[in-house]
Amino acid sequence: MRKLKNSELQRITSSEFKKAEKNPIILVLDNVRSAMNVGSIFRSADAFLIEKIYLCGITASPPNKEILKTALGAQKHIEWQYNENTISLIKTLKHPDNYLVAVEQTKKSIILSDFTPPKNKIILIFGNEVFGVNQKVIDLCDTSIEIPQYGTKHSLNISVSAGIVMWDILQNIKKDNISQ
Amino acid sequence: MRKLKNSELQRITSSEFKKAEKNPIILVLDNVRSAMNVGSIFRSADAFLIEKIYLCGITASPPNKEILKTALGAQKHIEWQYNENTISLIKTLKHPDNYLVAVEQTKKSIILSDFTPPKNKIILIFGNEVFGVNQKVIDLCDTSIEIPQYGTKHSLNISVSAGIVMWDILQNIKKDNISQ
Repeated sequence: MRKLKNSELQRITSSEFKKAEKNPIILVLDNVRSAMNVGSIFRSADAFLIEKIYLCGITASPPNKEILKTALGAQKHIEWQYNENTISLIKTLKHPDNYLVAVEQTKKSIILSDFTPPKNKIILIFGNEVFGVNQKVIDLCDTSIEIPQYGTKHSLNISVSAGIVMWDILQNIKKDNISQ
Repeated sequence: MRKLKNSELQRITSSEFKKAEKNPIILVLDNVRSAMNVGSIFRSADAFLIEKIYLCGITASPPNKEILKTALGAQKHIEWQYNENTISLIKTLKHPDNYLVAVEQTKKSIILSDFTPPKNKIILIFGNEVFGVNQKVIDLCDTSIEIPQYGTKHSLNISVSAGIVMWDILQNIKKDNISQ
């Protein structure tokens, strides 16, 4: 099992990324404290061909040294937008074409593995490392999903959560496309 | 959808974690550079009830300020062991009860979604942020798996990769248990 060289991985270029058809997923980062987490999410969004990232409130936006360190340049070609107020943004995204999903542990949250993404564009909202997604933002969402956790801690690192949720939803979208 | 308070999440205590039946997964971190990544992996290993983490070579081990910052205490109850030499460790782990899986892009790597975990205990090996898993370590493994990536970057952040691989394999183990 010879390890592949970077040149053998046949990755696309930044300009090919911009033109590529994206997966119907948009991320909203609601007051994320750590710029390194933001950068890591940009890097995953690159790998999974995500359409756009909204950075809200205190969430850092490029150019930023820590984002650069963990995004490794992905912030240059992924479409992103900064909005100071998450609630105003969510209200503009509330539209029949979009399905708003708070990634948060709520009274009614659906376990990730039981979640079947609808045909709409999926807007995934991730919250602050300590306080999670704002309750007023959750109130505007169509649903909430959670990654089941069996240990002592209350949550996963936000960039790990975002990676798992994107991966899982993409598997579902892919299966759905194959079965059509 | 009322957000749950931490007290409502009904997480287990550290001593309950120690006694809890673990998932048959062991992680090996082969010369991981960032202690923050190590801490984040400890935190995911807590959430997914992972059996043990081996820390090899230059990989930082507790007590360590950066591990503490991202593991949030998970390093206190998850079983871990430091081994200077990854190859010697892998040789001791090479046993019919164990299935050694390098998480690495190789000539023969299996796409994560096509990977069916065997009944054995799964040993997942993650490599250095820049150089990946050492080729000599890969040569000792039973297989290699990769997370398919469609963007410009060569890899995901290692703690994100580890989270996705653990999550996906656990879904497979769970399905397998239900179908029995």
